[in-house]
Amino acid sequence: MTTAGTLTVAGLGPGDEALITPEVRAALDAATDIVGYIPYVRRIAPRPGLTLHESDNRVELDRAAHALDMAAQGRRVVIVSSGDPGVFAMASALFEALENRPGTPDDIDIRILPGITAMLAAAAQLGAPLGHDFCAINLSDNLKPWSVIEHRLRMAARGGFAMAFYNPRSASRPHQFGQALDILRDECGGERLISFARDVTKPDQCLHTVTLAEATPEMADMRTVVIVGNADTRRVGRYVYTPRRA
Amino acid sequence: MTTAGTLTVAGLGPGDEALITPEVRAALDAATDIVGYIPYVRRIAPRPGLTLHESDNRVELDRAAHALDMAAQGRRVVIVSSGDPGVFAMASALFEALENRPGTPDDIDIRILPGITAMLAAAAQLGAPLGHDFCAINLSDNLKPWSVIEHRLRMAARGGFAMAFYNPRSASRPHQFGQALDILRDECGGERLISFARDVTKPDQCLHTVTLAEATPEMADMRTVVIVGNADTRRVGRYVYTPRRA
Repeated sequence: MTTAGTLTVAGLGPGDEALITPEVRAALDAATDIVGYIPYVRRIAPRPGLTLHESDNRVELDRAAHALDMAAQGRRVVIVSSGDPGVFAMASALFEALENRPGTPDDIDIRILPGITAMLAAAAQLGAPLGHDFCAINLSDNLKPWSVIEHRLRMAARGGFAMAFYNPRSASRPHQFGQALDILRDECGGERLISFARDVTKPDQCLHTVTLAEATPEMADMRTVVIVGNADTRRVGRYVYTPRRA
Repeated sequence: MTTAGTLTVAGLGPGDEALITPEVRAALDAATDIVGYIPYVRRIAPRPGLTLHESDNRVELDRAAHALDMAAQGRRVVIVSSGDPGVFAMASALFEALENRPGTPDDIDIRILPGITAMLAAAAQLGAPLGHDFCAINLSDNLKPWSVIEHRLRMAARGGFAMAFYNPRSASRPHQFGQALDILRDECGGERLISFARDVTKPDQCLHTVTLAEATPEMADMRTVVIVGNADTRRVGRYVYTPRRA
């Protein structure tokens, strides 16, 4: 009989160690194996009895299958994600791998441990731009057509939502974020506030708030979370906030 | 000359102490005054040198003004919120009070410390239902007309967003959540999955996933976070997840 292993997906937060929850810290301390994208695994200190398994970007399903295999063999496996594992991160990929796996899905003890996701860390640094109804949209078209993203931007704007964008711009698709800004200007007008939060809570953190009229695609890259306010979003002193009324 | 005080708005997470970040814990330990809605302040252990200021629900602006006054007098004040202070909580109310206050907004050192918000704690307990683009909507009509909420539900559904609802139902407006369910059935069809997460991460936590056809208003109250999947949201074993593709 094999001792049952465990599989935990843990959110490391956006970068600052003081944002890692005690629940996640305890899971990391109890792990025999830590699996994840290279820069996230490198945030974990090596120790005896712990094996670190680094993998490249865009191999989420292979990584999840490997973690499931090790858990099935009785290991205490932790998949590490940046931010919150349930927000554009490894939790969904894990369940996809579980669905594809032969056997009973409930054989393996799976736990998802939430973390501070980038948009909420960015919002806190900026003030409270997500203080009213809001949407989170992944602007990468790796896993969905760009036309779906354009449609979502328009529906979110017409619904009066504030918006947070993950993966706004990458070297492989430099023009799309400019198209997103055009759609937003079309739907929301040029006066709407947009904030760029790069390397949130890390030593090089950079925050920048402008109007949509002033925004340019170069203000974002893959290390940036972008937050667009709703029609009432405003500045008070150095802060940006969205009132609770609308 | 008055010593400058500080004003921190700290997220206590949904209930489990192991979800309070070290950053928040340090702010609580350094505070001279803690301000907040009664049940949140009661989560803080009394100690010498710390004054606890409990206030009732729906007095957010008075509470924020009181906290600003104490900070201006040189105190180290922490406003405690459940979950994340930037998501339907005290951060936005604080900036509203700051905007209304005479004087320079940047006189007082304000910091917002993020926490684990209820929808992400609920998503983690359920699996990964918010693993793709999603919206967060406060279903309370205290601060906005119900017609705005209905419009947002339709825009979110037509955009193909998963959705998380805060404050879905209260004794003072028992019928509205039924209307929300009717709108969702109209837009999304009866087979769409909807999850009810009550008292998330607390000892009495209760999770319940049904289809929209099966959902009834009584399944939610003010201690419940509701999550509606998108068209691809599915079950695998005891989990609910939304695939990364759409």
